[in-house]
Amino acid sequence: MYIEKINSPTDIKALDTEQLTELAAEIRSGLLNRLSKRGGHFGPNFGFVEATIALHYVFDSPRDKFVFDVSHQCYTHKMLTGRKDAFFNDEHFGDISGYTNPEESEHDFFNVGHTSTSVSLACGLAKARDLMGGSGNVVAIIGDGSLSGGEALEGIDFSAELGSNFIILVNDNDMSIAENHGGLYANLKALRESDGKCECNLFKAMGLDYLYVADGNDISALIEAFRKVRDIDHPIVVHINTVKGKGFEPAELHREEWHWHMPFDPATGKGLWEGGGEDYGSLTCDYLMKKMKADRSVVTITAAVPTNIGFTEDKRREVGAQFVDVGIAEEHAVALASGIAKAGGKPVFATHSSFFQRTYDQISQDLCINSNPATLLVNTASVYGMHDITHLGIYDIPMMSNIPNLVYLAPTNCEEYFAMLDWSIEQDKYPVAVRIPCNGVVHSDKPVDNEYSELNKYRITQQGRGVAIIALGDFYQIGEELAKLITEKTGTAPTLINPRYITGLDVDMLEQLKAEHSVVVTLEDGILNGGFGEKIARFYGADDMKVYCYGLKKEFLDRYAVEDVLIDNHLTPGQIFSDIF
Amino acid sequence: MYIEKINSPTDIKALDTEQLTELAAEIRSGLLNRLSKRGGHFGPNFGFVEATIALHYVFDSPRDKFVFDVSHQCYTHKMLTGRKDAFFNDEHFGDISGYTNPEESEHDFFNVGHTSTSVSLACGLAKARDLMGGSGNVVAIIGDGSLSGGEALEGIDFSAELGSNFIILVNDNDMSIAENHGGLYANLKALRESDGKCECNLFKAMGLDYLYVADGNDISALIEAFRKVRDIDHPIVVHINTVKGKGFEPAELHREEWHWHMPFDPATGKGLWEGGGEDYGSLTCDYLMKKMKADRSVVTITAAVPTNIGFTEDKRREVGAQFVDVGIAEEHAVALASGIAKAGGKPVFATHSSFFQRTYDQISQDLCINSNPATLLVNTASVYGMHDITHLGIYDIPMMSNIPNLVYLAPTNCEEYFAMLDWSIEQDKYPVAVRIPCNGVVHSDKPVDNEYSELNKYRITQQGRGVAIIALGDFYQIGEELAKLITEKTGTAPTLINPRYITGLDVDMLEQLKAEHSVVVTLEDGILNGGFGEKIARFYGADDMKVYCYGLKKEFLDRYAVEDVLIDNHLTPGQIFSDIF
Repeated sequence: MYIEKINSPTDIKALDTEQLTELAAEIRSGLLNRLSKRGGHFGPNFGFVEATIALHYVFDSPRDKFVFDVSHQCYTHKMLTGRKDAFFNDEHFGDISGYTNPEESEHDFFNVGHTSTSVSLACGLAKARDLMGGSGNVVAIIGDGSLSGGEALEGIDFSAELGSNFIILVNDNDMSIAENHGGLYANLKALRESDGKCECNLFKAMGLDYLYVADGNDISALIEAFRKVRDIDHPIVVHINTVKGKGFEPAELHREEWHWHMPFDPATGKGLWEGGGEDYGSLTCDYLMKKMKADRSVVTITAAVPTNIGFTEDKRREVGAQFVDVGIAEEHAVALASGIAKAGGKPVFATHSSFFQRTYDQISQDLCINSNPATLLVNTASVYGMHDITHLGIYDIPMMSNIPNLVYLAPTNCEEYFAMLDWSIEQDKYPVAVRIPCNGVVHSDKPVDNEYSELNKYRITQQGRGVAIIALGDFYQIGEELAKLITEKTGTAPTLINPRYITGLDVDMLEQLKAEHSVVVTLEDGILNGGFGEKIARFYGADDMKVYCYGLKKEFLDRYAVEDVLIDNHLTPGQIFSDIF
Repeated sequence: MYIEKINSPTDIKALDTEQLTELAAEIRSGLLNRLSKRGGHFGPNFGFVEATIALHYVFDSPRDKFVFDVSHQCYTHKMLTGRKDAFFNDEHFGDISGYTNPEESEHDFFNVGHTSTSVSLACGLAKARDLMGGSGNVVAIIGDGSLSGGEALEGIDFSAELGSNFIILVNDNDMSIAENHGGLYANLKALRESDGKCECNLFKAMGLDYLYVADGNDISALIEAFRKVRDIDHPIVVHINTVKGKGFEPAELHREEWHWHMPFDPATGKGLWEGGGEDYGSLTCDYLMKKMKADRSVVTITAAVPTNIGFTEDKRREVGAQFVDVGIAEEHAVALASGIAKAGGKPVFATHSSFFQRTYDQISQDLCINSNPATLLVNTASVYGMHDITHLGIYDIPMMSNIPNLVYLAPTNCEEYFAMLDWSIEQDKYPVAVRIPCNGVVHSDKPVDNEYSELNKYRITQQGRGVAIIALGDFYQIGEELAKLITEKTGTAPTLINPRYITGLDVDMLEQLKAEHSVVVTLEDGILNGGFGEKIARFYGADDMKVYCYGLKKEFLDRYAVEDVLIDNHLTPGQIFSDIF
């Protein structure tokens, strides 16, 4: 196998086209080995094998610098830059992350997992090179799906004025995570259909030179194109048309399903995970489908990750115009929701906690200053959520809960979640965000409130004394366990409180606690800094009440085991008990 | 005068072209009256008089809905919708804000002061109309400068697929706040020069229909164009070429200076404000100019507001390639800075606290996960900063200081500010943000540290006992006054501490304070929620130390008097003294 001898990109430069084609097949077998056993980004990586080989064949990494957007297509690059064991040798799967990572290799320049950032980051490398008298090509790689993101469009617009070597490689597989949305995709189509020749050209309209490669999986054609632009003295877009999932039939046929895939049988593509049990994606989708069918003014909005709340292709089709996927355009999604709410509609925008980070200003300015009653559904907002450094869901409480006018709700179980969501959709006074629970679908047969208009009223779920446990959202169950432990160990039952509202204090209740409690414990599923517990600590700052805040340290975690993190942050009931007694 | 009889837009529909032209002149006299005495957005408003008249002449507001981007061009709209007194009658200047405002009029749909939002917000109005069976035109108005912003580009891209009535009016005066930057502006130029006919067309490339009006200050031409697109059944861009500052010679000649202007003599244009004294804009510019001249790797980056840190046109020219204005593209600016820092450059990106809100995700993902040593200079981050609801600088502490890896510094005087800035530029380890002081240029002859690499070390500036005052940044001077008052009134001097670091606790010092102090007072120039003081309160949560946190309530202030806000938040030394003794 050729791949066995490739330890750095220079090792491929001696191969001829036939050998490179053979290498591509070997690389796909490595991808298949890892992805079938471990899961990961499938379609974009299978489609970008030839382009990566051609890049490393023509350019000279790391002197020439490749910046991968969102890293969905960086696996072949990892294989060719000394990390092939992580694909061919199962014991080494853990050696690499799913994203480019400067700690792994000098061929990686940024740790990237959010979309639409490559052009801007690469502009920085080019600008520094030009100022400081450096040399080498800078190549930003970006998929067509990422082009709709504001940061990418800002970067492309800016790059046109760099006035020096800069290459934007647009990997166009006619697909975002799901299908693309937005007017620019008609232009990409027109460019593909005219062999890059149609006069109206988005990239030229943004001031860039342009080159088209019709078959982006043809190594020879790619090498020829890259040779043309190597050492070019101005910015240029190289637009290549690749096949998402290329070389694995199920992935070519079902491109959305195979964008990212769980482990599967490599012979058939059949998933190894049986599913089973309830999940909040399907439950949320079922609820919203019913709601939309009953009320024309309800609109579900997603931003390129519709299936995360259960909206598979058939569901999207079924609900028609009341479902809007904006593509990768989270800022737009929040402003759109604000506009819909202003006009009397009932919008629900759902995405991951980590992607809401794109919308701080839109939440503040477009939505909350205007007090429009839109609903934001915050997914995987939890230590139990996604575990990669670029996708952590543990920062949304400080980010969002300190924005004035926003009502941010944390349900403690399934029934409460849907009651809060339903209230939010039907009320017409507040911008509301709801954290989708993330610690498994916990049911409760206790009555839940259907009305949350009287803000910041906490619920005492167990009246006790001595210690009051204020347990927010997903960590309510830790609060329950802690309450049980305290009762067992001390013989005195503590008070247990479900605060429900992240965005405000129940001052009356906190005052009343003083009478029969000397200790307050707060629990929250997110970092402590800027979060919920600190507000309680400030409230009691000048009182005799002892306040212990539990949550996570402010840090970037990466590929962690939840249990380790919980222990590290003293979040087990036993640890907490030891701290306070 | 015609304007006297115009109390709602219907009143202009009976006028003929000559009368409308006369009306335009009257409107300009009203603009001149208000702006010469009170200041405000001059150039964009003077350029958009005819277009606003034509809009209200052809369309039927509020059934037809106009959404103004950033509101820089909404004054004529205010005059024609019942608010003319605020321009012609000096006593009524205070009746209106400088921005569109639904509380003022049913003709305003959003409170908007950040750029690039109109298209997305208007998309929401159109979407709701279509779903709920409404009618009427939706018109999003956007200046050419705002087009480079990611949210605008996301919105334009999305709007192409609305499939129903939607009109984007591009007010192209060939100018952002300063000059435009980005490749798309070459396309706007080509469109202007070809009378809208050049084949390569940004808007068409994003899927939109297109109509060009060569003279955007010609009422008849505008009326004709708007009649063509009224009740159109699909999205279209109407691109009009207007003259920024039209009708006031100094403003036409010096377009950047007259984008926004302080009060002036309407006869000559000469400013009434004498200037005088030092300001941090000029000081920062002087410092950076010197720094850049001495070191080719230092780069100053701004995003459309270069003069806010003193970079007037001549300074920008003088420094050449080491100065980068990215235009309205804050997200790109932060990612660019990260890329420059990664490649060994020393980037400094400066903008307003309120505009950094656009970059939460870029600070977190592009910059801090990658630990690249870029410097962010946070301007008008203070209750003493800008007073409009859309431009408040009191949220950056919770927004930024809870992002892992960021070092956020709060200087207490001029010398400390430049020492921190210089350290930040020269170090190569941390992403650093520095708050530019905003409470006047306070000098100190006490020695300042030049080295901040040992993070989170607070400085005791006065050793005392009993009470410890931890006074952050701009509020350090309140801390000094409070310390004096306590000494005077109690005979015991308190300890005064300059914490310097917003992003971490000096745990050793906080521990040591326990020995001789029973009260800690924290002071910070921003909202308390999610801020600095709450972290101190959490630290001492289970101790006997009494903690009093002072700062601002979490709320959206609007057009406030600083003194009132300080009193309302118990921020005078006298009030604080009464609270703690």
